[in-house]
Amino acid sequence: MREIVTLAVEEPMEIRADGRSYAVILRTPGDDMDLAAGYLVSEGAVWHRDHVPEICYCTTVSGKSEQDFNTLTVTLSPDIPEPEPAGSPAMTGVCGVSGTDSIGEVDAGAHFQAEPVMPLVGSEVLLSLNDRLGERRVLSGRTGGVDAAGLFSPSGELLCLREDVSRRNAVDKVVGWALREGRLPLRGSILQVTGAVCFDLVRRTAMAGIPVLAGTAAPSSLAVELAAGAGITLAVVDPGGGGALYAHSGRVEA
Amino acid sequence: MREIVTLAVEEPMEIRADGRSYAVILRTPGDDMDLAAGYLVSEGAVWHRDHVPEICYCTTVSGKSEQDFNTLTVTLSPDIPEPEPAGSPAMTGVCGVSGTDSIGEVDAGAHFQAEPVMPLVGSEVLLSLNDRLGERRVLSGRTGGVDAAGLFSPSGELLCLREDVSRRNAVDKVVGWALREGRLPLRGSILQVTGAVCFDLVRRTAMAGIPVLAGTAAPSSLAVELAAGAGITLAVVDPGGGGALYAHSGRVEA
Repeated sequence: MREIVTLAVEEPMEIRADGRSYAVILRTPGDDMDLAAGYLVSEGAVWHRDHVPEICYCTTVSGKSEQDFNTLTVTLSPDIPEPEPAGSPAMTGVCGVSGTDSIGEVDAGAHFQAEPVMPLVGSEVLLSLNDRLGERRVLSGRTGGVDAAGLFSPSGELLCLREDVSRRNAVDKVVGWALREGRLPLRGSILQVTGAVCFDLVRRTAMAGIPVLAGTAAPSSLAVELAAGAGITLAVVDPGGGGALYAHSGRVEA
Repeated sequence: MREIVTLAVEEPMEIRADGRSYAVILRTPGDDMDLAAGYLVSEGAVWHRDHVPEICYCTTVSGKSEQDFNTLTVTLSPDIPEPEPAGSPAMTGVCGVSGTDSIGEVDAGAHFQAEPVMPLVGSEVLLSLNDRLGERRVLSGRTGGVDAAGLFSPSGELLCLREDVSRRNAVDKVVGWALREGRLPLRGSILQVTGAVCFDLVRRTAMAGIPVLAGTAAPSSLAVELAAGAGITLAVVDPGGGGALYAHSGRVEA
């Protein structure tokens, strides 16, 4: 059996918002500010750059320097409601759905209208996105066990790539990047992720206003149901080259 | 792009314990009582068959028959402390770690001593377990996007197989089966799961007293750290036939 050279790092990061502990996330360090911002978008707490005037590493909590880069303090705009700490009551499972009791709550929590279902991307471009993502990835080849999320334009241009031991975190890092760049909602874009599409990834896609989501393994029934209800095109791009459409196929041109 | 025939079902299930809502889990229906029991073991709330005198579907909550099989009521022995609802404060990420703030808490929450590190399984047997699991799976071939967990004896005999859209649930179903059969702690056994091994799967393995855990993709740094600290042998069995050992390799004979 082979020798181990490199491991993907996984460490807890605490997000503090308005002076209170909001969530503790296990993540691969890197793009931490994007992750904190994106997590707040996914939880429905913020949806505009102005809602998050400041995110900084906390240097006063522990007194230990190695801890300082595992705590982020988010200052929220006084205009928005004070967020409830995420994940209470517990709802866990596929990817861990936190702080959301039902599909109804997802609809109620989304701040953006669904985009009309119009042709947006050609099937050849869509089927190429996972390979394009793979070419640009940094961590996966070195360690294994790392997932990725990539945001693409309809012509297949990579706009943002993020990697993490958790697919959900990789998506939050992309969404947080978009929030901080003032790009939400992410109209006219495509999110490609590695692995199976679960309910929670569709939920995150909806919260960011992304119209097309593609994974590399079959989604669950609940993921398809939510995509259908939220107006999201849901696709699977096989690593072998084929593909399938599960909801709102009208955005994909043959 | 191909036509969709079958989807893996994912539905929320509520676990009520001693009259209070304990957790809501997204899961693939089937082996629900095992899942409820295993979830309580993983959270450290129970660790012996006598702690759970009764688990039943709730037929009085909603008045809607389709809901009755999505709510399980667990009666706990009066001997054990009343459990805190899981997942508060939120700790989420890879597989969603709920209700646990640190590696220290995992150690404190484990009710079983780690098994001494002695040769237990031959590397040829260990490398064959993922194929043996695949031969016996029911859901994966039909739908894709489904994970599995299998409990094996050191000679490679399959003791229990469970499938779910969530790896974590598949493990909880195996552990809950063992609790209900009076088999905890699962000394001298091997748990093979599909996919990457994250912190939360190692935690569940520790809570059930299983000495050897194997996945099919590389673990994270935190998963390796916890396995090393909890006395668990951590391995990866490649679908291609190779393998690697990450912690306590002394249980695997060349």
